[in-house]
Amino acid sequence: MYRSHTCGELTINEVKQEVTLAGWVQTVRKFGAITFVDLRDRYGITQLLFGEELNTQLDAQPLGREFVLQASGIVSERSNKNPNIPTGDIELAVSSFKILNRSAVPPFTIQDDTDGGDDLRMKYRFLDLRRNAVKRNLELRYAVNRSARNYLHENNFMDIETPFLIKSTPEGARDFVVPSRMNPGQFYALPQSPQTFKQLLMVSGYDRYYQIVKCFRDEDLRADRQPEFTQIDCEMAFVEQEDILNMFESLIKRIFKDVKNIDYTEAVERMTWEDAMWTYGNDKPDIRFGMKIGNLKFPAHTFPSRIAHLQNSLIGVGSSGFPVFDNAETVLAIAAKGCSEYTRKQLDELTEWVKRPQIGMQGLIYIKCNADGTYKSSVDKFFSEDKLKAIADAADAEAGDLVLVLAGREERTRKATSELRLEMGKRLGLRKEDEFKLLWVLDFPLFEYAEEDNRWVARHHPFTSPKPDHIAIMINNNPVIENAEKYLEHPYSNIKANAYDMVLNGNEIGGGSIRIFQRELQEKMFAALGMSEEEALHKFGFLLGAFEYGAPPHGGIAFGFDRLCSILGGSESIRDFIAFPKNNAGRDVMLDAPSTIDEKQFDELQIKLNLK
Amino acid sequence: MYRSHTCGELTINEVKQEVTLAGWVQTVRKFGAITFVDLRDRYGITQLLFGEELNTQLDAQPLGREFVLQASGIVSERSNKNPNIPTGDIELAVSSFKILNRSAVPPFTIQDDTDGGDDLRMKYRFLDLRRNAVKRNLELRYAVNRSARNYLHENNFMDIETPFLIKSTPEGARDFVVPSRMNPGQFYALPQSPQTFKQLLMVSGYDRYYQIVKCFRDEDLRADRQPEFTQIDCEMAFVEQEDILNMFESLIKRIFKDVKNIDYTEAVERMTWEDAMWTYGNDKPDIRFGMKIGNLKFPAHTFPSRIAHLQNSLIGVGSSGFPVFDNAETVLAIAAKGCSEYTRKQLDELTEWVKRPQIGMQGLIYIKCNADGTYKSSVDKFFSEDKLKAIADAADAEAGDLVLVLAGREERTRKATSELRLEMGKRLGLRKEDEFKLLWVLDFPLFEYAEEDNRWVARHHPFTSPKPDHIAIMINNNPVIENAEKYLEHPYSNIKANAYDMVLNGNEIGGGSIRIFQRELQEKMFAALGMSEEEALHKFGFLLGAFEYGAPPHGGIAFGFDRLCSILGGSESIRDFIAFPKNNAGRDVMLDAPSTIDEKQFDELQIKLNLK
Repeated sequence: MYRSHTCGELTINEVKQEVTLAGWVQTVRKFGAITFVDLRDRYGITQLLFGEELNTQLDAQPLGREFVLQASGIVSERSNKNPNIPTGDIELAVSSFKILNRSAVPPFTIQDDTDGGDDLRMKYRFLDLRRNAVKRNLELRYAVNRSARNYLHENNFMDIETPFLIKSTPEGARDFVVPSRMNPGQFYALPQSPQTFKQLLMVSGYDRYYQIVKCFRDEDLRADRQPEFTQIDCEMAFVEQEDILNMFESLIKRIFKDVKNIDYTEAVERMTWEDAMWTYGNDKPDIRFGMKIGNLKFPAHTFPSRIAHLQNSLIGVGSSGFPVFDNAETVLAIAAKGCSEYTRKQLDELTEWVKRPQIGMQGLIYIKCNADGTYKSSVDKFFSEDKLKAIADAADAEAGDLVLVLAGREERTRKATSELRLEMGKRLGLRKEDEFKLLWVLDFPLFEYAEEDNRWVARHHPFTSPKPDHIAIMINNNPVIENAEKYLEHPYSNIKANAYDMVLNGNEIGGGSIRIFQRELQEKMFAALGMSEEEALHKFGFLLGAFEYGAPPHGGIAFGFDRLCSILGGSESIRDFIAFPKNNAGRDVMLDAPSTIDEKQFDELQIKLNLK
Repeated sequence: MYRSHTCGELTINEVKQEVTLAGWVQTVRKFGAITFVDLRDRYGITQLLFGEELNTQLDAQPLGREFVLQASGIVSERSNKNPNIPTGDIELAVSSFKILNRSAVPPFTIQDDTDGGDDLRMKYRFLDLRRNAVKRNLELRYAVNRSARNYLHENNFMDIETPFLIKSTPEGARDFVVPSRMNPGQFYALPQSPQTFKQLLMVSGYDRYYQIVKCFRDEDLRADRQPEFTQIDCEMAFVEQEDILNMFESLIKRIFKDVKNIDYTEAVERMTWEDAMWTYGNDKPDIRFGMKIGNLKFPAHTFPSRIAHLQNSLIGVGSSGFPVFDNAETVLAIAAKGCSEYTRKQLDELTEWVKRPQIGMQGLIYIKCNADGTYKSSVDKFFSEDKLKAIADAADAEAGDLVLVLAGREERTRKATSELRLEMGKRLGLRKEDEFKLLWVLDFPLFEYAEEDNRWVARHHPFTSPKPDHIAIMINNNPVIENAEKYLEHPYSNIKANAYDMVLNGNEIGGGSIRIFQRELQEKMFAALGMSEEEALHKFGFLLGAFEYGAPPHGGIAFGFDRLCSILGGSESIRDFIAFPKNNAGRDVMLDAPSTIDEKQFDELQIKLNLK
């Protein structure tokens, strides 16, 4: 061992002990004949004191930033203590030292506020990983990993490894494929998730499975996606939805406790998908704050349970003579607390904000709820004071608030209102970094309509069970959509799934479902998705086969491990929580991968390029 | 929840409680009006008693093997107890039941001694996994996983995930490659191990890393190899070989304790590679038994440390006038305890055994050490009784033993003698299943000679450091081999590595090394392996670069997790310890993978087939 102690553990208790440390030179400071060195390792920083007698050696072997140094000597009490670090009471009076390795001058400073840009730090990731900020992220990641494993172990879950070289069954996302040299012309696929394997394990009787496992999706990368990502993947047999919700909200609470020392004792809120969309315009609402949406106008079939409400609409914004509302499919309002005194400039800026292409609205209507109870709006000439009050009431606005109204096509308007709500929540300081609010979103639609093919696609995945009450709707109706315009009136659009998402502070951190476990229903599902019997057998014959031999009722969930860590770590970016991430083009710029391969490899794999 | 208890937990303490169980029907037995059902789940088996009143329902819904059943009723004490199972004191007097799912008749019986052949069980792996024998294996695997993680965690190791989509750097084994759609014409590779990443993590200061991680090698599969396999992968910084040996023999001892309840308190034996080859003919000797090799004749340069012994050879078997010995490069002997009375037939059978193509010897010479002190051999006419005694003494034979002698080319003869030793050990019951003997094999050669290219290849991998004393030999000599015939006389053939293997009962369960951590030495190593500077930079530029910024001394080890589990589980086959293994052609016969992919996938990846 090159050291007797780490750089993070020496305190006043070790004074007068002879010790040896090894680590990296953080700083070198010369004061006359004396030299101070801060020596850093994974565990901390310790000050080294080099006396005059070592100057000859120091002159011959000068120390530089990031040199690897081994130093022995006696632990001494510091005259000038540093209360900010655990080792701040002592220093090491060096009697001998050895440079274990030299370092070139690093391309950026190894400090929390580094001077290195993103690209440079990605290229020299091995140096970026030395920074405290990055190290804390990876330590948090490991703590979450450890906590999850402990909880699941204590609850009788078994970690069972599933294969990485599997079969390509593209359905939804694109597979990464791997040419098989031993089976020329054939390919493995990398798993998008261990979904079918964990279901097989339930069929096999391993009634509580988990894995913290890499998954792969060959998608065009958006800002914060990675082609390989990690899931906490779980499945249980002989359970109903309620059992799963209880088991896994306790998992997240345990992680809160172990990793952040947060006692999350309250029950996790639950909300149906319809309520989430209705109230927050979003299926993963941030419920750290209210600012609920007032639904002034909306198309009936999107929210069948609200049809009555629509018909009895008190507000009637759609027949006001104001063309923007009259022509809009949807009119939604939110109230920004205490913002009634926003200036023209502030309102113009907000209007520009909603008109940005990412939000894509035509404009923004406002109603100031003045402190004196009067209203002032951008649509005064179309609406009476009573009408303005009715709109403000629909958004739960009070005197002093600012009501913001968006109008347009249903999907875009609802999304834009949700974005505006989140933006206002941020600006008003309502999205507190140290507050964590969990939410279960339930009762998702089983199907989504795919316009390009005029067919149904699975919203979660093809293995998700309909809600028990809705199974009959699925079985007794033909999935074919006769009239594309009126797909919302097809019975399938109202089938709800036994599916659930866990949302944390406005981010989906996990999702799952109760699965189909009967062959007939699974076949019906494949057919509903437009798969021929032959195709279903080719892709999923093993699963259909397994369902014939006593498949138990089962369900599960998968958490996005990277995302969960980033939220717990208070960061927007999952990349900060991955040791060796890829950039937005799917490249590892440190390795320079992907890269070309040899002729010999092409030859052995019996493939060749076919570049466009 | 479909159950209040599992099928493994009800005992006499629960008698009179009302409970609900769910599981699979193992057996149905009818006695008159009464029906007994054994209900099975992951935790055990519980007997269900269906009284006369349920016969109408049972007739309408007959139960079959592997049906999934939910049954409620009262726990009752059994009149006819079964002491062999934990639930044997009770039975469940069923008051109501529900068939949760039916099952077709399974293609083989779900029992320890199943009637299903290998192929059938692989195709229906989800049913094979139900068998107790397989379940026990996966449970053991999870226990090893858990034990290893706990030990490593307690010793400050951090689980850090390394990427799966990396760069192809074929060196040794073949890479699996993954075409990149976003970077047409370029490929990722799947990692053969996280070797370079864990070294980068050491450079980054994470001084104790571990991962239980999938690795991939596209090799022609031998009997017990898998294209994807799992390693317990570890690395430490600021350590010397001794630190690593101590840390990881304690890991294995901990696993023995946690998983097998074995107190392995003795120090782990250590042996140099030369000693292992000299004494056991093998670099992973099974030291549960002796039967050490007597080296009667051998080529000097293979064992430089034995040259003196050769020159002073007392036995001189090579000038006896017996042409088999005279013409042989190597003559080796072992003594089979108490076998001096082997019959002609037994000796003939042994001779046939060594002549099998897998062993490949021309014949077998024997010397019977008779109980009366005389010798009887197959080469009596060439050797005097004294000479026979000297040979017998070299093999440590005593009266009553049978000495077996093999002669021929060095490599084959040594290997054959090792195989014969293991075979005799097995036949004589010396390789006890419940005995576990660990061994460190040390000081491996750094290089191996590759005849086809007349160059050196790394025996471990190109990142392994020479022993400190041997670094100068490496630096000061030209790696070029002028005379291929005399490669053993090249100074490189005597360089030993700072490498170590852990051997358990004759199986290599782990291996590792102290790594090179200086750029210059790493460059010298790449050059010694015949890599051009350009090639080295293209493949490993990131590592060479990292070594410029303060790389600490470091080293590590990787354990073959599948193999370790199979040995602890007392099986020869790693496949039994993998939930979803592939067959010898690298196929998953259950999934039918690999398989063809769509035109669309070829198109997007911009590759096409080039079948021969």
